[in-house]
Amino acid sequence: MNFSNRILGMDFSPIRKLTPYAKEAQNNGIKVYHLNIGQPDVKTPDTFFQGVTNYNEKIVKYSDSQGIDVLIESFIQSLSDSNIYFDKNELMITHGGSEAIQFAIMATCDPGDEVLCPEPFYSNYSSFAKISGARIVPVQTKIENDFHLPDKSEIEEKITDRTKCILISNPCNPTGTVYSYDELKMLGDIAMKHDLFIISDEVYRQFIFDNIPYNSCMHLTNILDRVILIDSISKHYSACGARIGLVASKNKDLMHQILKLCQSRLCVSTIEQFAASNLINTMNSYITEVKMEYKKRRDVMYNKLSNIPGIICSKPKGAFYMLAKLPIDDSDKFAKWLLTDFSYNKETLMFAPGSGFYATPGLGKNEARFSYCTNIEDIENSMIILEKALESYNK
Amino acid sequence: MNFSNRILGMDFSPIRKLTPYAKEAQNNGIKVYHLNIGQPDVKTPDTFFQGVTNYNEKIVKYSDSQGIDVLIESFIQSLSDSNIYFDKNELMITHGGSEAIQFAIMATCDPGDEVLCPEPFYSNYSSFAKISGARIVPVQTKIENDFHLPDKSEIEEKITDRTKCILISNPCNPTGTVYSYDELKMLGDIAMKHDLFIISDEVYRQFIFDNIPYNSCMHLTNILDRVILIDSISKHYSACGARIGLVASKNKDLMHQILKLCQSRLCVSTIEQFAASNLINTMNSYITEVKMEYKKRRDVMYNKLSNIPGIICSKPKGAFYMLAKLPIDDSDKFAKWLLTDFSYNKETLMFAPGSGFYATPGLGKNEARFSYCTNIEDIENSMIILEKALESYNK
Ligand SMILES: Cc1ncc(COP(=O)(O)O)c(C=O)c1O
Ligand SMILES: Cc1ncc(COP(=O)(O)O)c(C=O)c1O
Repeated sequence: MNFSNRILGMDFSPIRKLTPYAKEAQNNGIKVYHLNIGQPDVKTPDTFFQGVTNYNEKIVKYSDSQGIDVLIESFIQSLSDSNIYFDKNELMITHGGSEAIQFAIMATCDPGDEVLCPEPFYSNYSSFAKISGARIVPVQTKIENDFHLPDKSEIEEKITDRTKCILISNPCNPTGTVYSYDELKMLGDIAMKHDLFIISDEVYRQFIFDNIPYNSCMHLTNILDRVILIDSISKHYSACGARIGLVASKNKDLMHQILKLCQSRLCVSTIEQFAASNLINTMNSYITEVKMEYKKRRDVMYNKLSNIPGIICSKPKGAFYMLAKLPIDDSDKFAKWLLTDFSYNKETLMFAPGSGFYATPGLGKNEARFSYCTNIEDIENSMIILEKALESYNK
Repeated sequence: MNFSNRILGMDFSPIRKLTPYAKEAQNNGIKVYHLNIGQPDVKTPDTFFQGVTNYNEKIVKYSDSQGIDVLIESFIQSLSDSNIYFDKNELMITHGGSEAIQFAIMATCDPGDEVLCPEPFYSNYSSFAKISGARIVPVQTKIENDFHLPDKSEIEEKITDRTKCILISNPCNPTGTVYSYDELKMLGDIAMKHDLFIISDEVYRQFIFDNIPYNSCMHLTNILDRVILIDSISKHYSACGARIGLVASKNKDLMHQILKLCQSRLCVSTIEQFAASNLINTMNSYITEVKMEYKKRRDVMYNKLSNIPGIICSKPKGAFYMLAKLPIDDSDKFAKWLLTDFSYNKETLMFAPGSGFYATPGLGKNEARFSYCTNIEDIENSMIILEKALESYNK
């Protein structure tokens, strides 16, 4: 009785794999600060819950495989605020951005094909590729360069006749990097020259700080038939559990093909779709306030973190993560040690070890991703604990 | 810009592909009876909506990738009523039975592998296999034999070294066949001898008529490490849009691997999980009454259908579908004609053409699947229309 090579080759979530140790620490009376996860602590807007209450059908029926009309229209409207314009059949509702990325890879890659991806990257990208029999080919970015893209030639070097698409997260999880228009344009040129698709994962697009302009691959008007946009309400509206996302492209033929994938799983949860469609009535101030709050947290975390001796970090410009180099040799070991062997005033912290965000063996081993979607007090406490822990660990 | 061969090789839903013609007919003032879909017209139990109302979190968070505890426990409890016993880590909540089947195939099949499946079968099985690069190898069953399984030797003939699993739907969509204990035992013996998994899709297990006993592959105690059970609330509780299903197996190693797939898509819709967990408080009379209603409808449809000249049909013992041979040469053409060229008293009907349920080219061409999850009056009217239509079509 063999399992598939596909599934044996997949990894467990690097973010969730420390959970058993955290549970044990908690059982031993230790408070654990969870800087490891991307679950915002911000309230979901009331409009969402009103949407749930407004649902008054007597039968929870299958909805259209593409998604319910009101939700599709509300996404079209809210994307147009960012100068991104879609027609109805260019957009399909998915179970989160996760399913959207999975569909985009499945539609463009066959087994053995390659997905070019700036490294470090969101760890599930690797799972989505492996599920499809494809493989992430990493393009290294460096902390010294704030994780911006390398030169065009360095990217093109990695392209083979099996490369089918470029996959980016913009703003980037885990680095917080926001790509410039010129960087995106370079990717667009590469895509055109080498006949590739660009899968542009913009699930953090509302969280860009310091007045940096938001540029989307959907603004590259000359290659719009090559761009596949991924979006989601998870982070923007702090509604991760709703599982509402979208996959969209001006390439109607592609979307027509993706409809087959949508039909095979019948539809997306109906009540959550209704609820999500009411988010359009959320006041603009909601996102503005959430964004201001994240910026404040980022500032606190960056100031504290960059002042801990031996830590190197780059100031993130978007999303709610920070990737830092720690003065240790193995952050997997250190993360586990924090939970099993250390506490300061009966408190400790969890982060996501860097290795989980790299495909290149050995890279990221001394790095750690800290998320700042927790409150400022917790961030401050965590940073004190981290400093104490490093002192003790390095003795 | 090429799309993947995977997606090009997939089909659009044979059930949904007539929809544009139906819309046109409706626009022309013609009433269309939808006997083509598996969407029950029965009310979702109040317990589900109470579950929605009871949800009072302020943040719609990611839940555990495996599913929320209360829902897992409620499934464990309700399965035990059918003498099926699972522990917590042997069961994972999925986005409907659809995702559960997809996960089971992904975990057992690599590209090029084969899934043995009695034919005719639920058309999306073919999509789930193709998504994974695998292929359905059909084992023919015949209407004359009420679509029961052929001899062991005929099944074993189809097994190659690429066969990884047997996939059955019991009770069966599209035939309504309920497999006997001896048939399941035969499959179990084959699975053991040829080292295969059995994916047992039992999403209609509550709907078995005529006092026929319900047998599950989960009752084959000697091969439980090979059985993967698929279940769903969609049909039993008329809650198709909730997208709540499960994949379960006593093979803990397999479930541990499947957890990777669950983690990659993060979690299942949280509010729908909460709502579904309250279904355990539904009165037993709900399912009993629904089942009695379906039985009545089945009897009406069977009596009418089998009396139409030239029609051959087998009396279904479960689920809510009937597959019949029509006195025509091409049911795809006939189905379209019904919508574009025919009406009787300004009414017509839709069914699912048989070809969509077969992998063997040419088979099912004169067959049609009628679902009886609509009310009796509609069924009666549809059967009159069908008889008139056949007379007119065959003139
Ligand atoms: C970069 C990125 N893309 C996609 C996702 C998936 O989010 P969801 O499926 O909840 O929309 C995440 C979640 O953390 C993410 O960080
Ligand atoms: C045999 C069979 N299996 C699985 C499914 C999938 O159902 P769901 O994903 O709604 O649980 C269906 C739906 O019609 C079905 O007929």
